[in-house]
Amino acid sequence: MNGNVIVGQSGGPTSVINSSLVGVFQGAKFGGCKKVYGMRNGIEGLLENRYVDLDDYIRNELDIEILKRTPSSFLGTCRYKLPSYEKDCSVYEKLFAILKKLDIKHFFYIGGNDSMDTIKKLAEYAKTINSDITFMGVPKTIDNDLAATDHTPGYGSAAKYVASAMKEIILDTDTYTYDSITIVEIMGRNAGWLTASAALARTEDCTGPDLIYLPETPFSYDKFISDILEVKKRKSSAIIAVSEGIKNADGTYICESTKSDMKLDVFGHKMLGETALYLSDMVGRDTGMKSRGIVFSTLQRCASHIVSRRDVTEAYEAGATAVKAALNGETGKMTIFKRLSDEPYCILTETHDIGDIANIEKTVPKEWIIDNGTYVSNEFIRYARPLIIGELTPFMVGGLPRHLSIKD
Amino acid sequence: MNGNVIVGQSGGPTSVINSSLVGVFQGAKFGGCKKVYGMRNGIEGLLENRYVDLDDYIRNELDIEILKRTPSSFLGTCRYKLPSYEKDCSVYEKLFAILKKLDIKHFFYIGGNDSMDTIKKLAEYAKTINSDITFMGVPKTIDNDLAATDHTPGYGSAAKYVASAMKEIILDTDTYTYDSITIVEIMGRNAGWLTASAALARTEDCTGPDLIYLPETPFSYDKFISDILEVKKRKSSAIIAVSEGIKNADGTYICESTKSDMKLDVFGHKMLGETALYLSDMVGRDTGMKSRGIVFSTLQRCASHIVSRRDVTEAYEAGATAVKAALNGETGKMTIFKRLSDEPYCILTETHDIGDIANIEKTVPKEWIIDNGTYVSNEFIRYARPLIIGELTPFMVGGLPRHLSIKD
Repeated sequence: MNGNVIVGQSGGPTSVINSSLVGVFQGAKFGGCKKVYGMRNGIEGLLENRYVDLDDYIRNELDIEILKRTPSSFLGTCRYKLPSYEKDCSVYEKLFAILKKLDIKHFFYIGGNDSMDTIKKLAEYAKTINSDITFMGVPKTIDNDLAATDHTPGYGSAAKYVASAMKEIILDTDTYTYDSITIVEIMGRNAGWLTASAALARTEDCTGPDLIYLPETPFSYDKFISDILEVKKRKSSAIIAVSEGIKNADGTYICESTKSDMKLDVFGHKMLGETALYLSDMVGRDTGMKSRGIVFSTLQRCASHIVSRRDVTEAYEAGATAVKAALNGETGKMTIFKRLSDEPYCILTETHDIGDIANIEKTVPKEWIIDNGTYVSNEFIRYARPLIIGELTPFMVGGLPRHLSIKD
Repeated sequence: MNGNVIVGQSGGPTSVINSSLVGVFQGAKFGGCKKVYGMRNGIEGLLENRYVDLDDYIRNELDIEILKRTPSSFLGTCRYKLPSYEKDCSVYEKLFAILKKLDIKHFFYIGGNDSMDTIKKLAEYAKTINSDITFMGVPKTIDNDLAATDHTPGYGSAAKYVASAMKEIILDTDTYTYDSITIVEIMGRNAGWLTASAALARTEDCTGPDLIYLPETPFSYDKFISDILEVKKRKSSAIIAVSEGIKNADGTYICESTKSDMKLDVFGHKMLGETALYLSDMVGRDTGMKSRGIVFSTLQRCASHIVSRRDVTEAYEAGATAVKAALNGETGKMTIFKRLSDEPYCILTETHDIGDIANIEKTVPKEWIIDNGTYVSNEFIRYARPLIIGELTPFMVGGLPRHLSIKD
């Protein structure tokens, strides 16, 4: 027997984060671990002694398959920031007492940048107290902004949703003859990976969006208007993808202009939103043309009805690989993907030191942003296309996708 | 040979309006019609002599299947209002001259209320000039607000999208522990059918939305707040579905409060939008709780990646039935569905006089709206559930749904 395991999910949900949970669960079971506990709402819940024995909820192979197809964090999530243990180790003492009580040998946290900060701190603290508990990160974020890994689970499915929805919106828009400007807002605070995926809609049967604005390039409203007028010279409807996180040259978010009382989350990040509606109002006023804003909102991260099969599979492997590494004694690491080739698509799944990952945001390379900051290059397309390939059919019951959920 | 046919699409697109187009096309071909023309952008394009020979675009059985899976109006759409022929018959003379030039014997228009007004006027005018051209309507609207028919093609797929997305949003919301209010805006100006379909999300594995507000019931903001606070007594996250068309007791749209310069479309309808964002801002301010608005926007009518197979099939049959009736000499009618039973689901497909349909909006029966105007009854569920049953897989190419489109 390999001792007990605990796993948590943290940060914003994705469509495939539960596939990673299944990867950890089955990896631990196949690896001979006794119990697999799940933290309710990550570290935050664990500190309140809220956890479950996953055997009570994942009861058979049908549950496994439904859980892989269930979006959002099955265990619940949190946005809890661990204090530095040098400053305040009381939280750490409490946490390690709970881990001891449950006889935990291996700790897994599925999340993004901020969650990897948690893994880093816990692994470091464990070393200072000579604990033999291993702490491993499993990557998860639609933002695709984690360092050291080729890409992150969650991104491929979100990108597939964005590109599919973009194709559908373009058809919807082009069906009218009148002049129109459609501005679609896509998630991404500082990294434009997901917004860039709108370019995947440019295919044999679709022109794709006309303009794409990422947060990596300073945004100028005047240039934006002239870019649009340039598009309008050749077609009646202009379709524009903008990141929620586009910023003026001075670093202020465009959407900050709309809100005087902008809120911060617990990590001190500004809470964004409605950039597209703000721009749409401005553009409509300034050009006199019909304009509208569409905000993809939550669905881009939870539309499990259209996921990338490759993403689901890789999310699973990210979880299972972290377990395998932990059982080999690794700690303070995260599963990463190394790309060997785009076509045929080939990756290696490994682990990497969390110190190179926590709190670092990987943005879209400058050289992949082209056309004076209004599009992305073929290099991006070659990078992103393989990640959206393949489908995993939802289990449809009564006409709707069936999900697995914890009922307390 | 049965002469030539022309078909047009009008009004807002749906996910299955092209399945009706295929129904007309194949119905005409099987019925021995010579040419099947398609109006570009409905009547508006036809008046500009813009039309296509559909044989040039629908070339084989693969095209047929892709077109059935292509959302939005393949032929392009318009929102053109025919003048009364008593007042101004010049447009009619122009139109009939074009029909004569193309040797058209049968005219089909796929659309909603306003499009059926077009069919009514054309059929009446034809009678006054003793023309033997038949004019038939094929129902289409996600609003499900056409009279005389049990339901309309387009509704089932939109309802399936709304209920699926609602399930996914609920999972996404419930994954956090904090208090939150999520207001989801669903299309429907005066009829709440589509908003009501959010209730279909209430299933074995999902609580469904907590509150549903339809335009059929006068909206009171004070009651809205107290309804929400009642929900919050028993759960941390409140999920609310609102129709874009909810109105105050005095008949003003809620979203009118947000826009001083509300625009009218050509039919004199007010152009709505962003009710959810307006309410979300208000509610956040008045309750102090985290609130957000999600607007389903265009995707609810064009998400061909998740359609109801039954809807696709019925849309096809609506087209083919109109052709069959026309070949039998019927004119001034629309295809309707008569429901024989909910379970097992059984309908008859017939035609009905357009006079009972044009310009009439069928709303949700008062007795199906329950809980003091905050939910819909089991009668509604029994009515709507069969309409979202079955899936039609998109043809996925390069990770994305493939569509058929006209390239001019």
